[in-house]
Amino acid sequence: MKKFQVVGIGNAMVDVIAHASEDSLAALGIQKGIMQLIDMARAVQLYAHVGPAEEVSGGSAANTIAGVAKLGGRTAYVGKVKDDQLGQIFAHDLRAQGAVYETPFAPKTAEQETGRCIILVTPDGERSMNTYLGVTEFLSPSDIDVDQIAQADWIYLEGYRFDGPESHEAFAKAIAACKAAGGRVSLTLSDPFCVERHRDAFRKMIREDVDLLFANRAEIMSMYQCDFAEAMRAAAAEVAIVAATESEQGAHVLWDGHHAHVPAIPTQIVDATGAGDLFAGAFLWGLTEGYDLEACTRMGNIAASEIISHIGARPEADLRALFRRHGAL
Amino acid sequence: MKKFQVVGIGNAMVDVIAHASEDSLAALGIQKGIMQLIDMARAVQLYAHVGPAEEVSGGSAANTIAGVAKLGGRTAYVGKVKDDQLGQIFAHDLRAQGAVYETPFAPKTAEQETGRCIILVTPDGERSMNTYLGVTEFLSPSDIDVDQIAQADWIYLEGYRFDGPESHEAFAKAIAACKAAGGRVSLTLSDPFCVERHRDAFRKMIREDVDLLFANRAEIMSMYQCDFAEAMRAAAAEVAIVAATESEQGAHVLWDGHHAHVPAIPTQIVDATGAGDLFAGAFLWGLTEGYDLEACTRMGNIAASEIISHIGARPEADLRALFRRHGAL
Repeated sequence: MKKFQVVGIGNAMVDVIAHASEDSLAALGIQKGIMQLIDMARAVQLYAHVGPAEEVSGGSAANTIAGVAKLGGRTAYVGKVKDDQLGQIFAHDLRAQGAVYETPFAPKTAEQETGRCIILVTPDGERSMNTYLGVTEFLSPSDIDVDQIAQADWIYLEGYRFDGPESHEAFAKAIAACKAAGGRVSLTLSDPFCVERHRDAFRKMIREDVDLLFANRAEIMSMYQCDFAEAMRAAAAEVAIVAATESEQGAHVLWDGHHAHVPAIPTQIVDATGAGDLFAGAFLWGLTEGYDLEACTRMGNIAASEIISHIGARPEADLRALFRRHGAL
Repeated sequence: MKKFQVVGIGNAMVDVIAHASEDSLAALGIQKGIMQLIDMARAVQLYAHVGPAEEVSGGSAANTIAGVAKLGGRTAYVGKVKDDQLGQIFAHDLRAQGAVYETPFAPKTAEQETGRCIILVTPDGERSMNTYLGVTEFLSPSDIDVDQIAQADWIYLEGYRFDGPESHEAFAKAIAACKAAGGRVSLTLSDPFCVERHRDAFRKMIREDVDLLFANRAEIMSMYQCDFAEAMRAAAAEVAIVAATESEQGAHVLWDGHHAHVPAIPTQIVDATGAGDLFAGAFLWGLTEGYDLEACTRMGNIAASEIISHIGARPEADLRALFRRHGAL
């Protein structure tokens, strides 16, 4: 048995969550529902214009790993923070959830700070994310511990992490270390605009290295530049397992010529942040615990429904108890 | 018309809120339901042992002022933070709520950090607070802007702020500036153990300077060292207005030989943090808007019921709309 079921690599971020009206999004020039990269100056400007906020640890892959840990899975995370107050908060929350996080803190003297994501939640529960990457942008191959990666059944790569100068090399190093030790590679496409920015690189990685692809409807359509059904088929032709989420329509899993659709759990949406992240966390936990792919997809849907029922992208309820209540365990 | 309806002076804190079991409180040596002062070393030790947390701006008087601002009142706050990430968060949240906060930031080189309060919320909604004061302990007379204080109808003094070397002098300076300009003085006793630490100084201030006293049952009993009814009578003999809260039993207001009891609004308690703070904020807003004392008490109860229905000690709902719904406006 390997030491880790899943090791995630991604953007380490603290979320700054504030409520906002549709009008205020427009006034701030924010496109609703997507992730936008911003610099420090814009982060300061935006923050000055948003209402009272709460700060909770976030980061897409980190949310996924928090989900695996919450389920009792053996899991670790790789992502860069600074040794500042937000960095300490990020590290604490991941470790307190039971994940291994041996971050090499960027020093207090680093010019950039710990990354943060200013999330504006509109009354419909949709979130518009404004990401200042900070030090997390500089995750480099030297931050990848090949011994740790070799101990993973699966690695989980966050598409967002492609937005950085040395990220491709870091991912390549992790993939090589993982495969050499008999592990498998999963990737999330993260965001349709992220796909736009890195389509060719993602495509190459998908074809050559990825064993399990996570994407939502908009992302997979952006990837293959066609409609949803066709995009899922195209992906399934290139990857062993495709898990495609479709919000309130549930999720699809495609493997080995099969295609199953699993309905969503009806839920009152408070804040959609983290739904895809927790879907992936629950799916990967189920997979590494030996459940079949439809069961994994059901677990993903249940976990996603928990996350969207409250503010914040880390699970609050006992996910195993929820799985049992829904007959998935 | 004066520029401010209320100027609050207190401990500027960021709350670090985590859920905890009764057993874990015992294991950590924490007495349930009270505020305990801790040093940096204990803060680090406790933080390492608590689960994932969320960070929201807090501080007792700051919560009160946030309530006044949320209601549309003209209000300002005085309390010390450092120019670090948590200090920036604290300042942002108060200003974003509409309060004036012209803090002299303690410099980045200050040895202590921005104060924080590690709040452990048990399943019954009760909160056990562990306060690292940090730079906020060092609020001194030089931080009191007498011109600002002179522009206040009321000042609101947080009893907790007595826990600091120069706090008595700072309060004395504020009281003098307020009274000289025809303003009035309100005080909250904050915590029964805080009363223990400063009983004689509080008593002197109550007799000589205080026009409106806020206290809960345990605090006022600790102050006068007798039962609740007798303590309220003793306080009313010394102060023009006494507002005494009694959790689910509602609140009492005593003035000029009168005593009115106003029942609480029945609410599912999620997190009791901030109930007393928001009671005071709504009460002071009502008072400075010209409502009678029973109406102010009713507003206080309604605001308290909003705060305890969610995690965090700052109001989330539209308090005026709530007042209207309950017929208080």
